[in-house]
Amino acid sequence: MDNVDYSVYLVTDQFDFTEEEFLNIIEESIIGGATIIQIREKDSETRDFLNLARKVKNITDKYDVPLIINDRLDIALAIDAAGVHVGQDDMPCDIVRKLIGPDKLIGVSAHDYAEAIKAKEDGADYLGIGAFQPTATKKNANVIDLNELEKMKQIDIKSVAIGGVNKDNAKEIISKYNFDGIAVVSAIMKDDNPRKATEELLQEVQL
Amino acid sequence: MDNVDYSVYLVTDQFDFTEEEFLNIIEESIIGGATIIQIREKDSETRDFLNLARKVKNITDKYDVPLIINDRLDIALAIDAAGVHVGQDDMPCDIVRKLIGPDKLIGVSAHDYAEAIKAKEDGADYLGIGAFQPTATKKNANVIDLNELEKMKQIDIKSVAIGGVNKDNAKEIISKYNFDGIAVVSAIMKDDNPRKATEELLQEVQL
Repeated sequence: MDNVDYSVYLVTDQFDFTEEEFLNIIEESIIGGATIIQIREKDSETRDFLNLARKVKNITDKYDVPLIINDRLDIALAIDAAGVHVGQDDMPCDIVRKLIGPDKLIGVSAHDYAEAIKAKEDGADYLGIGAFQPTATKKNANVIDLNELEKMKQIDIKSVAIGGVNKDNAKEIISKYNFDGIAVVSAIMKDDNPRKATEELLQEVQL
Repeated sequence: MDNVDYSVYLVTDQFDFTEEEFLNIIEESIIGGATIIQIREKDSETRDFLNLARKVKNITDKYDVPLIINDRLDIALAIDAAGVHVGQDDMPCDIVRKLIGPDKLIGVSAHDYAEAIKAKEDGADYLGIGAFQPTATKKNANVIDLNELEKMKQIDIKSVAIGGVNKDNAKEIISKYNFDGIAVVSAIMKDDNPRKATEELLQEVQL
């Protein structure tokens, strides 16, 4: 999948939102300029995940924004999502590529050069690289080694910075390491005004 | 998929077994006569589930016994399993059928006539019907209403009895309700001699 705009990549978390609030945040973020959406549900029953994914896809389709499913290839196939994002504990990228076909988007979370180069070899379209500081949503996320980061950025593959990225550090991270975009959870989902929060993040990325 | 032998259907649970013990129980059960195996992992990371499923498939392939994956179509596709078993909180059967193709086996857990007839309409190959008494592995399983059970058994579809089935009640359940087999977890997995436990269950079914 070519020409994907990774500028502001919203990764969702249901936190304590009602479904209506959750869906509203996603729509507001897209209106504010989010360019790609990922649903991440680690504790949902398959049926619940599927139903939620369908509702989110109605929104992303309306605005023609790609919807990526975290981990669950089955959900991605069921709703014909734009792609799948896998971590190192999820389905291996090469198997996802074989099952999902050449035209869908695959992202891989990479924390060092070895993981990054393997992802590219296995058919990933982009990397999620991080974390840049400890975050509320992934307490076990390790802050990335900057030497590894420099090496990873030599690989010819799209990439987004994820983990502790916000409007205060987005511009510096993007420009210093030449990322194609930033991925955020809390910086949008937890903001009282997700539309404005997205607009501000997009401004930092585009500066 | 035709000619599947549902006589003794082992559904796995890792309990506190080591992986070696777990795999050994499955192999012993197959040697004892288990005719079909289902892996059920509700709390595993995708990568761990995949790796375990591959190891189980090496065993089931060796003995030419079908391997069914509970809930996770993605895992089933990744290891080319014989099929998928879905509960009412899992992926809907019609979607599984569309994604997995006509040649794979789909089982559906059904607790009343409405669920059973829908499963058949949606392309299920067999039903898991139960529970027959409260069980250790599914504490929230409701014991089946016998009027519903009588109605369900009028539907022309294969079926296995699951939930509190053991060698003491297997023969009665099979013969009274004309099941094609029994599905068990603890009655094999928790027995000190899973091979002998399977042999005894098979004898009850074949009587």
